[in-house]
This record gives sequence, C-alpha cells and structure tokens, in this order.
Amino acid sequence: MTVFTEQLVEANRNVWATMARHPFVLGLADGTLPDSTLRAWVQQDRIFVIEERRGVATLRAHGLPSRLDDLLADLDRSLVVEAEAFTRTAADHGFAAEAEPWPVCLGYTSYLRCAAYDGVLEGLTALYAAERAYLDTWTAAAERSPADSPYHGWIQNWSGEPFRAFVAAFGRGLDELAGAPSPNLADRLGLVFAGAVRFELAFWEMCWSGQAWPG
Amino acid sequence: MTVFTEQLVEANRNVWATMARHPFVLGLADGTLPDSTLRAWVQQDRIFVIEERRGVATLRAHGLPSRLDDLLADLDRSLVVEAEAFTRTAADHGFAAEAEPWPVCLGYTSYLRCAAYDGVLEGLTALYAAERAYLDTWTAAAERSPADSPYHGWIQNWSGEPFRAFVAAFGRGLDELAGAPSPNLADRLGLVFAGAVRFELAFWEMCWSGQAWPG
Amino acid sequence: MTVFTEQLVEANRNVWATMARHPFVLGLADGTLPDSTLRAWVQQDRIFVIEERRGVATLRAHGLPSRLDDLLADLDRSLVVEAEAFTRTAADHGFAAEAEPWPVCLGYTSYLRCAAYDGVLEGLTALYAAERAYLDTWTAAAERSPADSPYHGWIQNWSGEPFRAFVAAFGRGLDELAGAPSPNLADRLGLVFAGAVRFELAFWEMCWSGQAWPG
Amino acid sequence: MTVFTEQLVEANRNVWATMARHPFVLGLADGTLPDSTLRAWVQQDRIFVIEERRGVATLRAHGLPSRLDDLLADLDRSLVVEAEAFTRTAADHGFAAEAEPWPVCLGYTSYLRCAAYDGVLEGLTALYAAERAYLDTWTAAAERSPADSPYHGWIQNWSGEPFRAFVAAFGRGLDELAGAPSPNLADRLGLVFAGAVRFELAFWEMCWSGQAWPG
Repeated sequence: MTVFTEQLVEANRNVWATMARHPFVLGLADGTLPDSTLRAWVQQDRIFVIEERRGVATLRAHGLPSRLDDLLADLDRSLVVEAEAFTRTAADHGFAAEAEPWPVCLGYTSYLRCAAYDGVLEGLTALYAAERAYLDTWTAAAERSPADSPYHGWIQNWSGEPFRAFVAAFGRGLDELAGAPSPNLADRLGLVFAGAVRFELAFWEMCWSGQAWPG
Repeated sequence: MTVFTEQLVEANRNVWATMARHPFVLGLADGTLPDSTLRAWVQQDRIFVIEERRGVATLRAHGLPSRLDDLLADLDRSLVVEAEAFTRTAADHGFAAEAEPWPVCLGYTSYLRCAAYDGVLEGLTALYAAERAYLDTWTAAAERSPADSPYHGWIQNWSGEPFRAFVAAFGRGLDELAGAPSPNLADRLGLVFAGAVRFELAFWEMCWSGQAWPG
Repeated sequence: MTVFTEQLVEANRNVWATMARHPFVLGLADGTLPDSTLRAWVQQDRIFVIEERRGVATLRAHGLPSRLDDLLADLDRSLVVEAEAFTRTAADHGFAAEAEPWPVCLGYTSYLRCAAYDGVLEGLTALYAAERAYLDTWTAAAERSPADSPYHGWIQNWSGEPFRAFVAAFGRGLDELAGAPSPNLADRLGLVFAGAVRFELAFWEMCWSGQAWPG
Repeated sequence: MTVFTEQLVEANRNVWATMARHPFVLGLADGTLPDSTLRAWVQQDRIFVIEERRGVATLRAHGLPSRLDDLLADLDRSLVVEAEAFTRTAADHGFAAEAEPWPVCLGYTSYLRCAAYDGVLEGLTALYAAERAYLDTWTAAAERSPADSPYHGWIQNWSGEPFRAFVAAFGRGLDELAGAPSPNLADRLGLVFAGAVRFELAFWEMCWSGQAWPG
C-alpha cells in the first residue's frame, strides 16, 4: 500500500511537473537569473524562513512524538543557518537583506502558520509539502546546474544527501503518525497539502514576475 | 472491531465506575446534597459551561466536517441554555450565580481549551470525554433519583433521549474522522481522553469537598 | 489626541486613496464590471466571508470584553447573510457559487486568521482594517453608483447606516481596549493593520486581473 | 508612576505573603521536607518545566520584540537544565523521574499554555507571574536555608543573581510592551496574573498535601 505522504505527492504530480520546469527554477539552476529576480528571491525567501520558524515553533508547542520533535529542532537550526546565508548573499550582491514581504510570501507563510495552529497533522502536512517540494524540484534542477554556476551551492544544499535524509525521515515520521487516515481526515489533509504546494509554486512565480503589492 | 470512542471509554472503565458512585453524584441524584455543595456545583458548573463554549469556538475555528460543525453549533446553543438554568437555580436558592473559578474548575476548562488549541482530533476527543462521562454517569444515577427529588430535572436532562442522541451522533462523527488511528496518534488521543475524564471526576470531588484556592 | 484606530487609518492614507479609485471598485459602483470579473469576485468574496467567520470564532474563543463579543456575534450573523447573498447572486448569473480560493484570497484569509491566533489586539486590529476599508471605500464609491446599477444593493449595504454604525462601534471597542498602546505594541499592531489593508487592495486587484494559481 | 508589573504584584500581596510562609516552602528551605513530599515536588515540577517550555514556544511563535524573544530563548535553555536537574535528583533519591501530572500540575500548565495561546500580553503576564513568584518566594525563604541544607542548591538557584537579573529584565520587557494598559486590558491581564500566582501557591499545596487524582 502506498504510504500517506506518497499519496499526497502522487495527487499533485502536475504541480510537481510545473515546479520542475518553472523559469525561476531553471534560471537559478543554470545561473541565468536576472539580478532583480535574484534579489526578490533572496529577500522574500529570507522572510519565508524566518516566518517558517514560527510555524515550526507552533507545531512543537502542540507536543510532538519525540522523533518528530527532534527533526523539527534540526529543521529550526538549519533555518537559522539558511537565513544567515541569505543575509550574506544579499551583502555579497550589494542589496539590503531586509525587505517587506510581498503578498504571496505573506500569504504563504500565514497559510503554513494557520495549518500549524489548526493541529499537528495539518501543520506537519503543510510543512512536509514545502520541504518535499524543495527537495524534489531542486533535485530535478540539479542536473541542469553547472558546477561553476554562481548559485550552485544553493542547489547542492537542497538536493544533497543531508537534506534528502531529513525529508525522508520527516516523511516517515508523518506517515507513522498519520497512519491510514479516514476518508474525512485524508480529504482535510489533502487540501492542506495541495494548498501548500500551490503556494510554493506561486512563490517562485512571485519572485520571477516581481509581484509586489498593487497600488 | 471496536470503534475508537468505545476503546477510549473501555480503557477508562475504572474512572467510569468511580464517577457513578461518587458521593456528589449520588447526592444530586437522591436529592440529599448539602446546601453548600449545591452552591459550589451550580457556581462552578456555570463557569464550566461558559468556558466550555470557548473550547467549542476554538474547535469550530479550525474548520470541522459539516456534520460535526452542526453538532457543535447545537452544543453551543444548549450550553447557553444550561448557563441560564444555573443562573436561575442560583436565584431560586438565594445565592449569587457569579463566582470565582476554583483551581480544578480553572484547570479543567484550561485543559479542554488547550486540547482544542492543539488540534481538531485532540479537542474533539477531550470534549467527547466530558459529554460522554456526563451521559453515562447521570444515566447510571437516574435510577436512584426519585421523581420528586429537587434536582430531578438536571438528572433527566443529562440522561434523557435528546442528550443521548447528541452524544451518540458526536461519537459517530468523531469515529468517522479518527478512523483507526495509528498507534502514535491513538496514544496521544488516549492521554487527552484520560486527562479529561479524570478532571471530570476531580471536578465533582472539588464540589463535594469544597476545594477552593489555598491561602 | 487622535484615537488609535484613526492613527492606523491615517498612516495608510495612500492605500485608502488607491482603493477608492481601483478599477474593480469603480466598475462595481457604476455597473460596468465584466462578467468574468463579477464571477471571480462573487466566488472569492464568498470564500472570504466563510473564512472570516473562522477568524471571528478564533477571536471570540480568546474571551472578549462583552461589548466587543456582542459586536462580533452580530458580524458573524451578517457574514452568514452575506455568504447566502453571494450564493444567490451566483445562481442569478448562472455560475457556480463554490470555487477554489485563489492565492491572494487564501493568503489574506490565512493572514486574518493568524492575526486572530496571535492575540485579541492583533486579531481585532486586522479585522477592523478589513471592515473599515470596506466602509470607507464603498462610501467613496457610492456617489458614482447610479440607483439602477445592477450592483447598487451591494454598494448600499457597505455604505449604509447599519454598516457605518457597526464599524464605528467596533472602532470604539477596539480603541477602548487598546488605549494608548506602548511604542512597541503600536508598531506591532501597525504592521498587522497595514498588512490587512494591503491584502484588501490586493484582493480587488486579484478579482480585477483574474489572478488564479500559476501552472 | 508604578510600572505595570509592580501593580500586578502589589494587587496580589496577600498571595505573596502566603507563599513565603507555606509549609512546603519552609520545609524545602530548612531541609525538613518529608521524603514523599520531596518526591512529589521533584516529579511534578519536572513535568511543570517540560510543559512550561510548550508555553514559551507558543509565545515565541506569536513573534515577540527581539529583546523578549532573546530572554525567552534563555528561559527555554534554563528549563532544559532544570528538567535535567530534577531527573538527577530523582535518581539520587532512588525514585523515578517520570510520573503522571496531578490535577493542579496539569491544570496550572494548561492555564499557562492557554494564556500563551490567547496572546502575547496574556502569555507573558502569566509567565512573568510564575517566574516572579518563584524569585520572591525563594528569596524570602533563603535566609531560613542553612548552607548545609540538602536542598540549598535549589534555593540558591532561584534567589541568586542570575535568576534575579533574568526576572528583572523580563519585567522591563513586559512593562515596555504593555505600557500603561487601558482599564479593560489591565483588568484582563490582572485576572491572568492573579490566576497564575494562585495556581503557583496551589501547586505547592498540592506537593505538600499529596493531592493526586481522586478515585
């Protein structure tokens, strides 16, 4: 029988395919990203990881099985490192690290935080969606990323063994907790998952198209 | 196979037995409750239902399957009616309806609210524990309650057909959502359920023994 | 001294001005909205009010001063009526009322719900932002709305006396609770307010430009 | 003008006085605590600090001013150390560190977590109540604690300079955020504070009297 997390990914194959060939993803992979796009991404993704830590804290406050709690403690530490890497990248390129969140960034992080507030399974499902989408998309993109591409380090980070092991362990932990959810619960968590991966794709689109606030 | 809610009750049979023969329960059933105990109960249970409404609102804010949402909307309305009945009873007996929550009352209602904050399954499980304990205990006590007992109306309320039908529908809704939970999840929800029914028993003990704040 | 809610509006005058002249607002006022825009708006705003009710429930679950609680109970009832009006409008125009939330709709409602989860002042501030923006924008637009415009009823609803009285009472309740907040708290609530009104504007832009999910 | 946190302490002077002369406090200070009482305290307080960490995580998930966030990160680390110290003490005395929470312990920790869920000011106020009560009570008790008392280390921990500096900084942070709260808000936070300190006293009474679950 297909485990729960694989069912979720399976049901969103079309989003996975769209993510893997999105111009932002391809541009970061092969190093052809326009400067303004890089800047938008670095600034918005830095906000994303800071806000993601709030979602992680909300989840851990609900009291998690110890293995999942340890994994999220690891994730929290790696998000701190990632935020610092974005700050350094901003400095290297001569733009400010701090910026205002754009609508899709603020909406996506609010969505993840709401899922965490709504419960352990909801929050873990949304967070897993985001992490799994990252792993799979950058793994697909990695083969297009020459070793001398300026952003090669990022691609390696999200397609390398440590991150792959983390996402696999996270999936096992979620599958162990969710088991074979009832149809009602599977529907509910399926909606949460689909919302998160669509926001992930919309986030890249936002960076690519420079979708700031109107007005 | 035994459905989830019956497994939970089964695992707490000893608490069920202790509740059914608790002196507070017997005293309310046969109409021999001392005045000070009646007063403590009316005042504290009035607070309980007001706070329980906050837990119900928290749960509904998470977004529930529509049948469960309808049931909790019904419960919310009946809690308003119940709070008013406590207020009237206080007036009939010449004491104030408003009082300070005692430690077990404040602790129990905080526990229910926390369960609701922690998620849909946790909150529904805790709430179901409280409602099911009420139904079963007062049903057991009803045969000891003469029709002319001064508190006969309360016993009838919590052992009568409408409340029985509500608890049964609530159980079905929770079973449909919880399905056959994973061992991890069953452990987690089992702890929530056991905590709630022990608080229910401790609440009656508080009323019976007049356990106000120390100092 | 300017009360807190007026300081918040004052600090966002530019967003207010942009809202009042947004093509979606003008088009709804003078009755020239394209069919596809009307449809997007009716479907997305119906989702918005359904999700807004979850934010209202979250806020009331925190326990509000009784006047504010009564006001939010009124709001909740009017949101039910509004959702039904959107459903009827969809039927009148021959399209389905049910739809998927678009990114800005899902992001905005998640943002309001997060604010409610983060606390009473945060949640009330975000909700007030949404209601006040509605009142002021549709009041400004009302003079451009001929009585025989097909959407005149909506404009009247959000610029008429009952809604004006509700928003005024809501503002007084929030001002009474917030008092003269510390600089730290004023900054925090100012960010929440600004985020909500920018999302309000982005919501209209989403309806106007048909901003569905990418991919 | 008296700052907010001092007003809160002032309004609960009678609880402060009762705490400082509670037999549990005196017994821990002079080293005469019965073995069963020590065991109850070590086991229940260990649970308390574990659950308190959940309250701290909930608060930090709301997004705090950075100075308060840093302080709570410090607190979180010291709670880990404290839980380990309780585990060691249990081993030294030959009893299990793990135990079930008793009603007042479960009620008190649920109360603190609810306050954190209800908002930043509510949660900080409840947490400050607990920490300040600890500092003041053990400072008062310290002079009755001979240096060779078996529990002298605990008393020193909670009356020493590092903890005093932490509580002072926490109070300043809370005062800066709360400012001069409106009467409505001051009432609300005053109730939260009073509930927490009464639970603190009830916790010691629970340890002293061995108040386990009934039945």
